[in-house]
Amino acid sequence: MQIDGRHYRTIWLEDDGATVRVIDQTKLPFRFEICGLSSLEAAARAIRDMVVRGAPLIGVTGAYGLALAAKEDASDAALRGAHATLLATRPTAINLKWALDRVLAKLLAAPKAERAALAFAEAGVLADEDAACCEAIGQHGLRLIEEAARRKGGRVNILTHCNAGWLATVDWGTAIAPIYKAARAGVDLHVWVDETRPRNQGASLTAFELGAEKIAHTVIVDNAGGHLMQHGEVDLCIVGSDRTTRRGDVCNKIGTYLKALAAHASDVPFYVALPGSTFDWRLGDGVREIPIEERSGDEVSFMSGLTDAGEVTRVRVTPQESPAKNFGFDVTPARYVTALVTERGVCAASEKGLRALFPEATQP
Amino acid sequence: MQIDGRHYRTIWLEDDGATVRVIDQTKLPFRFEICGLSSLEAAARAIRDMVVRGAPLIGVTGAYGLALAAKEDASDAALRGAHATLLATRPTAINLKWALDRVLAKLLAAPKAERAALAFAEAGVLADEDAACCEAIGQHGLRLIEEAARRKGGRVNILTHCNAGWLATVDWGTAIAPIYKAARAGVDLHVWVDETRPRNQGASLTAFELGAEKIAHTVIVDNAGGHLMQHGEVDLCIVGSDRTTRRGDVCNKIGTYLKALAAHASDVPFYVALPGSTFDWRLGDGVREIPIEERSGDEVSFMSGLTDAGEVTRVRVTPQESPAKNFGFDVTPARYVTALVTERGVCAASEKGLRALFPEATQP
Repeated sequence: MQIDGRHYRTIWLEDDGATVRVIDQTKLPFRFEICGLSSLEAAARAIRDMVVRGAPLIGVTGAYGLALAAKEDASDAALRGAHATLLATRPTAINLKWALDRVLAKLLAAPKAERAALAFAEAGVLADEDAACCEAIGQHGLRLIEEAARRKGGRVNILTHCNAGWLATVDWGTAIAPIYKAARAGVDLHVWVDETRPRNQGASLTAFELGAEKIAHTVIVDNAGGHLMQHGEVDLCIVGSDRTTRRGDVCNKIGTYLKALAAHASDVPFYVALPGSTFDWRLGDGVREIPIEERSGDEVSFMSGLTDAGEVTRVRVTPQESPAKNFGFDVTPARYVTALVTERGVCAASEKGLRALFPEATQP
Repeated sequence: MQIDGRHYRTIWLEDDGATVRVIDQTKLPFRFEICGLSSLEAAARAIRDMVVRGAPLIGVTGAYGLALAAKEDASDAALRGAHATLLATRPTAINLKWALDRVLAKLLAAPKAERAALAFAEAGVLADEDAACCEAIGQHGLRLIEEAARRKGGRVNILTHCNAGWLATVDWGTAIAPIYKAARAGVDLHVWVDETRPRNQGASLTAFELGAEKIAHTVIVDNAGGHLMQHGEVDLCIVGSDRTTRRGDVCNKIGTYLKALAAHASDVPFYVALPGSTFDWRLGDGVREIPIEERSGDEVSFMSGLTDAGEVTRVRVTPQESPAKNFGFDVTPARYVTALVTERGVCAASEKGLRALFPEATQP
């Protein structure tokens, strides 16, 4: 997508064929900085310190990390060690393991002398596949936004939660991809951006993305969406998913469920955009079966931002003596989801709907 | 209520009979400071700068402001001027107008020489009435919490939103009064405190109050309540109301509605505690008829807190170029309210329920 009128991906290989560049997302939205990764250790650090985040982007960064390792030492032992090092950076990221397994298997099957070049090529293929998958989601979601625009005959107001934009992927994003497609197709639209406490990925990353693409948007607190929907100020909601059960329950950033309830109560369509890689076909009832990550309470007790002096710092927002709890995600049952938007098309949030689009899926 | 083991009200008259003391709520939760109001101007400033906040407390502060004015000049003109000055500090606060009108009428009917003493006495009566009203709400709400404890046979988890505690009133609070009564009655309980963006009155004031009273509590982001209710971690919700329609719709801090939807979806009782003074008998449909105050977007874009160096400062949490909108309240339709808890008892959130407890009310 565009920043200052120039196209970027979140990760790319320099012309030297040996330096990987990423946007440093810890500095956003206040500074736009690019940093180079030239070793396995640098790639691992970038994932661990959340310089890059978002499941698809982490997977591609891991793949490039293997390539950087192969450049130094392409032995089986070194590559297996690099795989373990990278996997340990975010142990719960399913995409990361999937990407690392795929690249490692190809490398081990190739002659040692060809492994480094093959690894860079394979990481590039992964990146291209992710961008194409997200663009396809955008293309399918575009039709839903166009329909809403036709129904309304005026500016479409879209509410989104957290950041499922291009910064979480290689390009385009998942939930935001249809918005980018619609904006480029000339649909008049405006986005309500939930700030998304505690980590504020909406207020920082989604607002930054939309601003850089010159798409009209307004930041609101997470408390405001219900009021807006009661008053007809939201024409559709669209969010992402980190994990999707075979029945169509979606696990996404904490607070997604509350917006789905409000959409349901006010008859506002609630769409979830996701790549097929988020499906967990083993799971049926998401509320009962998906374990919810509990993170440090400090993310609730402290907030980071820019001081008047231009420095990024954190401030405490709760009494020192008050404990805080921090649940990373919640589950929205399929009955509150109007439809799922995947790279293969739009389907009902149900086992039948999913199997029609993904007939090859088997429940292990 | 207690702070460091000592009983305080939010406002009181010194033994000199001429100095009004208030807790400076702009400094909470990081500093506990008391400041003196010794003139009309000081009282007006305290209301305007939110040194005192909460409808009942603002009303009592206004009454003391008239007393401080009468001490200087008890003429009709001076008192009318003081009334106008105080009213202008928070023009939409209905309680403030009600309190100022009541005291002014009494003063104008009295001989000039007696007015100052009468005004201080009358402000004291208002304060005592408010404390008694809140304590009665607490007593009625206590029974609901005791019932929940009996049903569960274990620790009762209560979720609250914003600050409807004693800091918003003279003493006891509205939504929190039943919690204080239950804690003193020995009920084992724990409170989930919504931080309540954008002004964070939950994370700052409610958490501070509960900590000072040594009541177990945990601060959570506003996004978390739905997840907790899905998993049986909330036994009841209790919130306040700024304005209540004759049909039982309640207007409260933005985000209250989302919690009511989640409680309804998970069969969690959702109680609203309020004094009869919040009723607006003219209004039926709260969503359609109650105008929602829109405040400065800066409250969304910036957040205040304590730096590591111990200074309270604000930081920007959104991109400079991204606009923000800030709706102060939302309306929860009566169908999502399990019951209303008033100073006269508990009733259904319906016109019939309300009229049974407040038969004297007439629709203007």
